[in-house]
Amino acid sequence: MVMVGEAAVSRGVVERRFDIAGETENVPGIVWTPEDAQGERPLVLLGHGGTQHKRAPYILGLARRLVRHHGFAAAAIDAPGHGERIAKTVGKAPTDGGGEVILEWLSSSMGPDAIDRMCADWHAALKEIRDLPEVGHGPLAYWGLSLGTLLGVPFVASAPDVRVAVLGLMGSFGSVRRRIRADAATIGCPVLFALQADDELVAFDRGIELFLDLGTKDKRLHAHPGRHSAVPAEEAMAMEDFLARHLVTR
Amino acid sequence: MVMVGEAAVSRGVVERRFDIAGETENVPGIVWTPEDAQGERPLVLLGHGGTQHKRAPYILGLARRLVRHHGFAAAAIDAPGHGERIAKTVGKAPTDGGGEVILEWLSSSMGPDAIDRMCADWHAALKEIRDLPEVGHGPLAYWGLSLGTLLGVPFVASAPDVRVAVLGLMGSFGSVRRRIRADAATIGCPVLFALQADDELVAFDRGIELFLDLGTKDKRLHAHPGRHSAVPAEEAMAMEDFLARHLVTR
Repeated sequence: MVMVGEAAVSRGVVERRFDIAGETENVPGIVWTPEDAQGERPLVLLGHGGTQHKRAPYILGLARRLVRHHGFAAAAIDAPGHGERIAKTVGKAPTDGGGEVILEWLSSSMGPDAIDRMCADWHAALKEIRDLPEVGHGPLAYWGLSLGTLLGVPFVASAPDVRVAVLGLMGSFGSVRRRIRADAATIGCPVLFALQADDELVAFDRGIELFLDLGTKDKRLHAHPGRHSAVPAEEAMAMEDFLARHLVTR
Repeated sequence: MVMVGEAAVSRGVVERRFDIAGETENVPGIVWTPEDAQGERPLVLLGHGGTQHKRAPYILGLARRLVRHHGFAAAAIDAPGHGERIAKTVGKAPTDGGGEVILEWLSSSMGPDAIDRMCADWHAALKEIRDLPEVGHGPLAYWGLSLGTLLGVPFVASAPDVRVAVLGLMGSFGSVRRRIRADAATIGCPVLFALQADDELVAFDRGIELFLDLGTKDKRLHAHPGRHSAVPAEEAMAMEDFLARHLVTR
């Protein structure tokens, strides 16, 4: 892990930009920890959505809340074709055509085997983040909606030490449908799954299908009114509470 | 409205047992209000589940929380064939055979036109409860799960002044299927709908179907793990918060 630039401190939250050697290319990431943190603590991996990146406002906001409210560590990396990994040749996302069209574009913009590469990148990043003495080998969580679920389901399925996950805003589509459904079935940790009732990208019944596919007995579904990106603030708080409840050993 | 016996006071909650003349028989009910309450306030009507009654522990608990935490009024009446309206000839509910069998038994134990009678009884009770000066014509809510949804959907559909409703643990079955689905489609107030992922009485997809049938744009779904009666305490709190958020004018 190579730290890039100086650590920044914002109201008790230390933010550090790092690079790690990923499967096929350099993988840029951010780790957030409490100021003056010592010793191991729960770590939440944050998977950003499609066309977003490791420091999108909702990622940064959740990371800071997890650090400030709970003393956890949080980390995010750019997905293939996103953030600092964006290819010059990739154009803008289509703004209409529905979920299948946008997911197809997203898939092609990330390149082949994006799911496997992201899985390998998360494992590589996780190993190095845990080498930080102020993170260590505490309880692990994964949070990711939309593309963060498409790439997150296979990661969580491959990481049995993930103790709790927040997923949602996604179904199983196209060429990866069989893969995602099979991986979902092997997930055994508690899951909070979020859907939007008027989602223009992911049909509600496709989201329900993926929720039902989850193998865990401890799964909760929260569906709210509104479009794909209109997850309400109350749900952000519910997700934070859900993670904290499972990460803090009482 | 005839008050029966003395009012009872428990830690700030006044509980009064009343009778009203219902559609076909005497209808027994309870109204809960804050001690020393003066003037109008929000009122939550509580619809109990099958084989339960107006003072089942979860009804009493929710009524007391609504009064103590928010200063609201709450009221419950026995459904046809339930509580003090139980017919001597009605035997015990079947303990197995699945949801359809139990719902069929429930339906026959309530007698024909139970939905219409309960609707009329709620309207009659509501009119008299609102004549109490410490209740008056404040904002109105309905809360009812399972049978409380089967009988509550038609009531809420018939009461446009219901500002917010909590429903769930039910689908549309058998002879009332068409009626319930049509009534659900006319509901326009915000709804929080609760389901249990391992419900042994109401298949999950039947519950999802009824959620999708709701005509309101502002609908939220919360699904938890566990059987029909295993709604977790955290959901009881979420429901209370949801009601309060919509009943308190800010």
